[in-house]
Amino acid sequence: MKIENIELFYLSMPEILDEADGSQDALIVKVEAGGLVGWGECEASPLTSIANFICPKSHSAANPIRDSVINQNINDLNDVKKIIQTVKHKSLMIAQTPHTFSGIEVALLDLLAKKENCPIYSLIGMNKSKPKIAYASVLFGKTPQETYEVAKNLKNQNFKAIKFGWQNFGLNIKTDEDHLVAAREAMGKDLELMVDVGAIWGTDVEEAQKRLNILQNANITWLEEPFFSDAFYEYGQLSDKTNLPLAGGESCHSVESAKNMIRFGKVNFIQIDAGIAGGILAGKEICDFAEANNVQYVNHTFTSHLQLSSSLQSYANSSKSLFAEFPQQLKSLAWDLTENHIDIDINGCINIPTGVGHAIKINQSALEQYKVDVQIYINKEKIF
Amino acid sequence: MKIENIELFYLSMPEILDEADGSQDALIVKVEAGGLVGWGECEASPLTSIANFICPKSHSAANPIRDSVINQNINDLNDVKKIIQTVKHKSLMIAQTPHTFSGIEVALLDLLAKKENCPIYSLIGMNKSKPKIAYASVLFGKTPQETYEVAKNLKNQNFKAIKFGWQNFGLNIKTDEDHLVAAREAMGKDLELMVDVGAIWGTDVEEAQKRLNILQNANITWLEEPFFSDAFYEYGQLSDKTNLPLAGGESCHSVESAKNMIRFGKVNFIQIDAGIAGGILAGKEICDFAEANNVQYVNHTFTSHLQLSSSLQSYANSSKSLFAEFPQQLKSLAWDLTENHIDIDINGCINIPTGVGHAIKINQSALEQYKVDVQIYINKEKIF
Repeated sequence: MKIENIELFYLSMPEILDEADGSQDALIVKVEAGGLVGWGECEASPLTSIANFICPKSHSAANPIRDSVINQNINDLNDVKKIIQTVKHKSLMIAQTPHTFSGIEVALLDLLAKKENCPIYSLIGMNKSKPKIAYASVLFGKTPQETYEVAKNLKNQNFKAIKFGWQNFGLNIKTDEDHLVAAREAMGKDLELMVDVGAIWGTDVEEAQKRLNILQNANITWLEEPFFSDAFYEYGQLSDKTNLPLAGGESCHSVESAKNMIRFGKVNFIQIDAGIAGGILAGKEICDFAEANNVQYVNHTFTSHLQLSSSLQSYANSSKSLFAEFPQQLKSLAWDLTENHIDIDINGCINIPTGVGHAIKINQSALEQYKVDVQIYINKEKIF
Repeated sequence: MKIENIELFYLSMPEILDEADGSQDALIVKVEAGGLVGWGECEASPLTSIANFICPKSHSAANPIRDSVINQNINDLNDVKKIIQTVKHKSLMIAQTPHTFSGIEVALLDLLAKKENCPIYSLIGMNKSKPKIAYASVLFGKTPQETYEVAKNLKNQNFKAIKFGWQNFGLNIKTDEDHLVAAREAMGKDLELMVDVGAIWGTDVEEAQKRLNILQNANITWLEEPFFSDAFYEYGQLSDKTNLPLAGGESCHSVESAKNMIRFGKVNFIQIDAGIAGGILAGKEICDFAEANNVQYVNHTFTSHLQLSSSLQSYANSSKSLFAEFPQQLKSLAWDLTENHIDIDINGCINIPTGVGHAIKINQSALEQYKVDVQIYINKEKIF
């Protein structure tokens, strides 16, 4: 069968707040072939990715992604791999390409898994999935007291691991310590506590070093994104100076960039977003490389459960990579987008859906409710 | 003064050919403040970068670039540095951002240099410019005979260095050798011969190794882009196996990624495009780091002389970095875009323009002649 149709849906909350919350809008991909439909989700920004998808050609290495996908064969995994290579070569010089293509790759695998009547993880070679320890991914409170309450509340919801994100952290050591002490106090000693500082120290290794003690005292499982996403040298420097495990990789937009983060950044946890890194197959390749180097693979997800299930497929059957990011505090768009959702079990684990494809059903009415109407004209001709 | 206006001009040849020629379209930036005008050029694709410039906000790290630039102060270099930091933080999660912002940074420096009535290189701290050995940047011929004729012709034009680009090279060792022998024969033994293979070997170090002999026999000055742009490990592997100097970096989209290419890729020449890496100031920072590590800085330019002058500013006064890429075979758009052009002197060198700003004048009629009309509507409202 051939890829007959690809549609992009730009969805948005009525108001976008100045928050570090990636669930406020979405770019959803629908692909159709042989009577089947596959769905995927790209990382934002939707308009930039739409332009990347349909832009006029600039030269032989800067083509619109659409041209490398539409009308191509899609009968087996090799066809998807061919499309991945074509996009890599033909749209190499457009920086947005990995963001845009990632959602398309997920939709193609979803469609192909539907043809084979199996989960995506089976399609890509895994015979079963294993539960992961879900870590609730939330932002630090405005005060240590608020952090305490958020942690307490999540513990009561049965979470065994909590990651606090960058808001209100990283600028003042005393306040940082108060947040960490509050979180640990609320969680007790057995729960896993992760800290994500959102690249706040840029390339300043010393600023990170100053916090090693307070982070170690809180017995954290990892310190995430101390530096800019491509500051591999600084990651490596910090790693050489401490036993504190480092995590990073959410902005890795290729298999190579993730390998760099592992080889040169010396992280202990590599965090990959199926909507950024190139898709689920890229994630699987990164997972294999990571685990061969004693690095745990972790999904990065801060949007819908469509993206959550997609990001879990790459390491579904791994018994070395134990954790899964489970975003909380989603905006209504990201929640309403899907008819079904992933939940934690009594052990605080999430089970990867065992249904066909990624097994997440799109709620058609949400596509209407949150729709952003986009029209693009080039020389008076409508191209989107 | 404040940045009052920013305009983007999408220009294109009437027909875009399936060639590795980046001069077939262009995105030109015009900024206005205090009665002054500055000009810059972004890397393609124009529509994707326009979308990046004006896209609706997605979240606090995915803002339209325009919002971080318009109405900002622009009185001195610190104001430009502030804007660079703001864009980095506020548009971090849109992959296209460095491509789009690079042209804006150049335009801002051009405007500021006009206020100070000096060249950009003076504005950023260099007291004079030094001539660079121009290398003609051309594609290999369809046959070795054609390569011979191209080389002969360029030698007759007084070039002391010629770089042959990837077309028709890298797939068959015998043909590759014939091209190299033909080029060297036409050039004689004293001219500098560079070879650019355009990442054709992906991550396959062995495929590169197979050509080391024929490249060494041709006495080349450097081998450029043997691997994907972020395959630092493979660059480093090849570097460890040969004395043949490596070059790369044209896709580096940040100071950090260029430092990675130097530290881990172990290149001997780092090639930076002012329209990709973040602008002229990013280039200067990379140059300082490169030269401190005995690596030569080289401009990457495959478009207009506006971009050529911009890319030369970052290392204008260097006496360690000797070469400059001088694109030949430009399409008429890239030539017609500017009223003045840079030429080689009798020593085969190019002299960086000593006029105010980047000293390249935009040809207003070309902005009309090659104009692509773009209109973008979001929920029926025209945003571009």
